[in-house]
Amino acid sequence: MKFEQLYAKRASCMKTSEIREFFQLTEQPDVISFAGGFPSAEYFPLAQINAVLQDVIAREGRTALQYGPTEGNWELRRYLAEKMSREGMPAEVENILITNGSQQGMDLISKVFINPGDVVIVEEPGYVGGLGAVYNYEAERLPIPLDHEGLRTDLLANRLRKLKREGRRVKFAYLVPNFQNPSGICMSLARREQMLQLASEYNFIILEDNPYGEIRYEGEPLPSIKSMDTEGRVVYLGSFSKTFIPGIRIGWILADKELIRKLTCAKGATDLCTNSLGQRMAYHFAAGRMIDAHLATLISRYREKRDLMLACMEKYFPAGVTWTYPCGGFFIWVTFPEELNARQILLKGIERKVAFVDGAGFYVNGKGKNTGRFSFSEAGPEQIEKGIAILGEIIRGELAAAGGPKTKSA
Amino acid sequence: MKFEQLYAKRASCMKTSEIREFFQLTEQPDVISFAGGFPSAEYFPLAQINAVLQDVIAREGRTALQYGPTEGNWELRRYLAEKMSREGMPAEVENILITNGSQQGMDLISKVFINPGDVVIVEEPGYVGGLGAVYNYEAERLPIPLDHEGLRTDLLANRLRKLKREGRRVKFAYLVPNFQNPSGICMSLARREQMLQLASEYNFIILEDNPYGEIRYEGEPLPSIKSMDTEGRVVYLGSFSKTFIPGIRIGWILADKELIRKLTCAKGATDLCTNSLGQRMAYHFAAGRMIDAHLATLISRYREKRDLMLACMEKYFPAGVTWTYPCGGFFIWVTFPEELNARQILLKGIERKVAFVDGAGFYVNGKGKNTGRFSFSEAGPEQIEKGIAILGEIIRGELAAAGGPKTKSA
Repeated sequence: MKFEQLYAKRASCMKTSEIREFFQLTEQPDVISFAGGFPSAEYFPLAQINAVLQDVIAREGRTALQYGPTEGNWELRRYLAEKMSREGMPAEVENILITNGSQQGMDLISKVFINPGDVVIVEEPGYVGGLGAVYNYEAERLPIPLDHEGLRTDLLANRLRKLKREGRRVKFAYLVPNFQNPSGICMSLARREQMLQLASEYNFIILEDNPYGEIRYEGEPLPSIKSMDTEGRVVYLGSFSKTFIPGIRIGWILADKELIRKLTCAKGATDLCTNSLGQRMAYHFAAGRMIDAHLATLISRYREKRDLMLACMEKYFPAGVTWTYPCGGFFIWVTFPEELNARQILLKGIERKVAFVDGAGFYVNGKGKNTGRFSFSEAGPEQIEKGIAILGEIIRGELAAAGGPKTKSA
Repeated sequence: MKFEQLYAKRASCMKTSEIREFFQLTEQPDVISFAGGFPSAEYFPLAQINAVLQDVIAREGRTALQYGPTEGNWELRRYLAEKMSREGMPAEVENILITNGSQQGMDLISKVFINPGDVVIVEEPGYVGGLGAVYNYEAERLPIPLDHEGLRTDLLANRLRKLKREGRRVKFAYLVPNFQNPSGICMSLARREQMLQLASEYNFIILEDNPYGEIRYEGEPLPSIKSMDTEGRVVYLGSFSKTFIPGIRIGWILADKELIRKLTCAKGATDLCTNSLGQRMAYHFAAGRMIDAHLATLISRYREKRDLMLACMEKYFPAGVTWTYPCGGFFIWVTFPEELNARQILLKGIERKVAFVDGAGFYVNGKGKNTGRFSFSEAGPEQIEKGIAILGEIIRGELAAAGGPKTKSA
């Protein structure tokens, strides 16, 4: 059977990401891995989860194990509408759609908006899940570089003018404004405002993905783009994967009611409904306020690991290597001297049982060969020190081989 | 914000099904409903589920609540590969992809195969979830009528010849061969063989959806189409929703390994992975053999309800009304005399607090106005007797008003 003859055109856009392939190498138990972006399973509140589950099965097992409405469980939606409202994004139940993780939010938005060849603005570097979701519907991804304030809206404005002259259609911009995956960068307030202005001027939608916003180590939260949206053109994606647990796959979409109705139709044909049991677990854990103390614990533990990884980079990485300072989330973005190849460093790291993700996969067009994403969420403190030290040695070796600048300690 | 200006072309195919709208009416607590196709929540094995859950959290909570591989949990896939092999469909782990319910299987197959305008063969009447999944990718649905042996392969052969002459591309046929939703009909062995032959001759795929196959009340199971497939052109969809519980959303795809790899890429961009907790629950309930005794109990309970509903139809429905005799599953398909309108009967039923689903929604092109789907899975015995009696009265009234044939008891 030759499936190639029968595949849809879009199937040629469905490829295993290199990052995914590499994960198989990096997830051997004896490898110190800074590669995955998973929350630490060590911090899962198992005792509370067990109590919540027993309660759910005893008190509402027959509905919690049955099919549920496509929109999601009403109580969870009400809880999230209230949460969004508290966070400056006034919402009612009808503004919320529960999704099978926020990745499904990206898929549904793509399914509803993208015709083949439509332009979707993405961050450079950008989250691979977002890049993949839009590409699977044959979008043309337009990458706009980031600086320390987030997406370069000045460059975007130029590109939008040009696209308009060419008669090209921009459907939406996919953004992770808080502690972005992979860069750890937080988009400044000015840039958020500029994004909204450009979206309004050129009539496109902003897909604001915020999985890490609540994992903040210092400073005050910036207003979400959605909170400044007066036209209903921002679609906000939330998730319980980082603040509670990912294995129940519970995320949500906050959007205009008309759009939520359309997305609900799309979701019905996609998977009928999100799992009811996970929705009840998330609801009771969050509405029962267990999430507040849990989140405080998570933040203090992840902050320690971030501080340690940054300190180790300072100590072990040679001059010429630079990295971002994330105020939240899981990721540090490292830029090696231009003459170095991050894939090469990674391969040597894997030989010595240390892994990260080389950065090229976060770019649409083969850039970023001297960059890498370092996650501090999963590794333990000893592993962080040991792993960064080993990588430091490898980088020095590569620099020496390339005849590059002298290292700090040499 | 006018979303219409930005929607993709396919968004015009995303509509709330009428059936879904009606469910809101039929699911009031005081309504006797034969409308939904849900399994009976009364039969959920809560004590066993509670025990499984406590065990999962205590022994493997950290993996069961974490992200999992896109393909699904390895042990569950191995269990399913063995199950499929036992059922005459030789399979290895790499032939199995776990999905967010089998609806997601339909979506992924549609996403991977359908270009706008491609032809997909569907049953007439057909399952609304399948009709919706393919329509959302702008397939042209070609409905082929059923008789008591299932899809009329003779009519299909004619249509395929014609399509070939026209140069049209058939991508796949969506079939529910066992106790079909909505008709309850079981496809004969001869028709299964003919389907496979036609698929081979005209080079299309068969999507064999089997949610009800294990809920069989009498007779020996017929071989699945997949079990007779020597070319890898049958994609088989399985589900735990009817044999265990639907609220965890666990289904699976059994297919050629190359196709599973492509579908896995598609799924990764769609929702990353299926919820890990539900997969572990299904695995332990099934691999621990609890499912065997549970299934035996389910079958005997549902069989009683089927027998009761059939007996009540015999007793209360007037002459001129006919219905199918399902050897398994949840559905009886009723055909009213042609002069009657099933929607009208339903509306009068709802006034008297009894509901079913009128059949038009299971047809692509406005047919079936004198048909209805009656589900016996959820209503209790007293409700079945009372509800069918009331509907019998309504039908007699409608017949009298239409000046139709005398009723049996008159």
